[in-house]
Amino acid sequence: MNAASETAIDWTAFPSEHDLTDAMFAELTRLTGDGVGITRECYSPKEDAALGVFSAVAEAHGFLIDVDPVGNLVVRAPEDDGSGPAHYIGSHADSVPQGGNYDGAAGIVAGLLCMIRLRGSGRVLTTPVRVIMLRGEESAFYGRANIGSRALFGMIDGKDLAARSRGAGPTLAQAMAATGIDIAPIEAGQKLFDVEKAASYLELHIEQGPVMVDRALPAAVVSGIRGNLRHRRVVCRGEAGHSGTIPRWLRKDAVFAFADLIGRLEEHWRVLLERGLDLVVTTGIVGTDPAEHALSRIPGEVMFSFEVRSQSHDTLEGFYELFRSECRAVGQQRGVSFEFDDRVYTEPARMDEKVIALLSKAAEDVGLNPQTLPSGAGHDAAVFANAGIPSGMIFVRNTNGSHNPHEAMDTDDLIKGTDVLYKAVTAHN
Amino acid sequence: MNAASETAIDWTAFPSEHDLTDAMFAELTRLTGDGVGITRECYSPKEDAALGVFSAVAEAHGFLIDVDPVGNLVVRAPEDDGSGPAHYIGSHADSVPQGGNYDGAAGIVAGLLCMIRLRGSGRVLTTPVRVIMLRGEESAFYGRANIGSRALFGMIDGKDLAARSRGAGPTLAQAMAATGIDIAPIEAGQKLFDVEKAASYLELHIEQGPVMVDRALPAAVVSGIRGNLRHRRVVCRGEAGHSGTIPRWLRKDAVFAFADLIGRLEEHWRVLLERGLDLVVTTGIVGTDPAEHALSRIPGEVMFSFEVRSQSHDTLEGFYELFRSECRAVGQQRGVSFEFDDRVYTEPARMDEKVIALLSKAAEDVGLNPQTLPSGAGHDAAVFANAGIPSGMIFVRNTNGSHNPHEAMDTDDLIKGTDVLYKAVTAHN
Repeated sequence: MNAASETAIDWTAFPSEHDLTDAMFAELTRLTGDGVGITRECYSPKEDAALGVFSAVAEAHGFLIDVDPVGNLVVRAPEDDGSGPAHYIGSHADSVPQGGNYDGAAGIVAGLLCMIRLRGSGRVLTTPVRVIMLRGEESAFYGRANIGSRALFGMIDGKDLAARSRGAGPTLAQAMAATGIDIAPIEAGQKLFDVEKAASYLELHIEQGPVMVDRALPAAVVSGIRGNLRHRRVVCRGEAGHSGTIPRWLRKDAVFAFADLIGRLEEHWRVLLERGLDLVVTTGIVGTDPAEHALSRIPGEVMFSFEVRSQSHDTLEGFYELFRSECRAVGQQRGVSFEFDDRVYTEPARMDEKVIALLSKAAEDVGLNPQTLPSGAGHDAAVFANAGIPSGMIFVRNTNGSHNPHEAMDTDDLIKGTDVLYKAVTAHN
Repeated sequence: MNAASETAIDWTAFPSEHDLTDAMFAELTRLTGDGVGITRECYSPKEDAALGVFSAVAEAHGFLIDVDPVGNLVVRAPEDDGSGPAHYIGSHADSVPQGGNYDGAAGIVAGLLCMIRLRGSGRVLTTPVRVIMLRGEESAFYGRANIGSRALFGMIDGKDLAARSRGAGPTLAQAMAATGIDIAPIEAGQKLFDVEKAASYLELHIEQGPVMVDRALPAAVVSGIRGNLRHRRVVCRGEAGHSGTIPRWLRKDAVFAFADLIGRLEEHWRVLLERGLDLVVTTGIVGTDPAEHALSRIPGEVMFSFEVRSQSHDTLEGFYELFRSECRAVGQQRGVSFEFDDRVYTEPARMDEKVIALLSKAAEDVGLNPQTLPSGAGHDAAVFANAGIPSGMIFVRNTNGSHNPHEAMDTDDLIKGTDVLYKAVTAHN
């Protein structure tokens, strides 16, 4: 693999971390901009190009780079032979189509800054730091998230490998093979990462929501990664009829029943938040049937999606039980019925208590408010955490959400987040 | 116009009104059945065929038939020269495509039964009874309802006449001309019916809702015809976002806002019904935008239709004001906004108090519960009422609603309704 950037930039010549950071993002934009935003398809030349920029920076600072069996790159100091345990700082190099520059890349940049700062300080740690630059975190191309981390733990199956890019391009297996990876051990579900080699897994990521902007937090420690319970399609069935001729007491109006259900769920949600539970509830898709709905027809049917997210398995299951029981109650009171498609569950991931404490202490030490935040979106850290590796995350403030060209992270905030990472990995070393 | 039925049925030979009624409906089915239901397109050979059956029955019983300038047929007794005032019993001969046999036709049958019964009794009334067999009540073919009655009062305009059958067939003007009608006076908006000639207008119609089945009412008097206030499209706009990353307090969820609005409107509706107001509220169409909605996206937008119906103009306007004010309140509390397309108003029609009293007394006299019901759907009676003619309606029980092949009226119930009509027209005569 040619991991070197094609440019002749002298990556050691920047006067500050701030300038080096800006130069890395500028180079990423130059190589992977798509005219609208940023596109770095996983296991494609564009992801390679991003990895190339990071590798060039690492090599310019004297670091060595290993390719793991899944195509992820691991950066290590020359005095670290890579065989013993290390603190891994990880993030991903890919992006969604027409996405932003920071989702994923910010974490790799922070990891590299940490290693460069450490090397500059002359300190040698008992447990070294390595940066793992992951591939394929986004599900946008192959429908499966965290490909680069899951493959390390034998969690990519034949169905995943047969999926085609955006439904029509090459298969994931073909794309991986084209990157020089041996598919056989992945397909066989082999474990390709030795859990004992990771003293911890740390990941810095931009926040994908608006909370830190609202609370004026430049960087914050993540308490856990939310799992979710979903139905793609629930149908509320009542009885259609002429809107002018059926009085209220004889109606079985599916839309009024749906509104009633949502009102009840929102009230439960409000009460559970007051009790301090972590919970978000969303019905992103709602619709009467265009084939039969009409302005003057009592809606006999409405379909909707249902999603609940929480860091706690118990909260997910508890709220789901409330959901089903309110469906039954609304059904009985209004003469409607509810039909549910398959329930899909994604397990939450707990960040390690000791890692959270370490990161929180580090945040306080560098002058930050030690508030913790949940992560609503999934991250590779969830895969490492659920594999049994003590894991933690740091969020960096970001305006306009992620997965769009308008992601807006301030470089100073990234440096603040890097300060926390650095404090944490050097604390006990 | 050849108003005679093509068959050789002896319409005077049936032993009972019940048998005569069944024979008329059987003949209508034979001539205008479409394989699925009944189709009698207005100003077409199928509407002519239905009018032909009724005319044959009328002529067999010695009545005379006039064609009015709009193509409606008026049945009168030979001793009535048609020049003086009369009680008109009216209904329409047309149907929606694949509709039922009773919507419209039941009222004409009842009118003819009344006249035949009266003639059989030998009584001659001071104010005679005439049956007006109207064309074109349904809006299904030309988008305009009550063509046959509105044209009598100069209420059909050039746009109506230029409309094409089902959007693609001949224009209404062409179809009318083909039936032998002179279009010029209709196009000029001339009044073609002398209001002074109608002492009253009475119409029997099947109920199009389920109330009478539920309350076990074979026939009932109509209190008024509901008008409505509508928006075809209201858009509630919030803010889209990642469902996992935005907590409740930072959300502007359009679907939760919509559900809240519906909950508030339903509560107002409930309270107003308890105060005895006539009101139905319907949101027949609801939907998030398929181009941007997703299971894990907080819905930034939802569109919905809004319709309120009432017999009272004040109730319509009052509820509309509540609707707009609740939209403002939800908007303020949830950070969403509402956008409204053009408001469309259809005026309610009041049935004449004296006619209602007369019909109610008649209903009581024939042993019926004198309950009154509103009509949610529009009828030609609304046109006659709003033209200043004292008007009233009788509903006959009907299962499965109307405008579908499953309309189910019991002949005995129609006879009950006819009894009420007969009592009423002979009461003061």
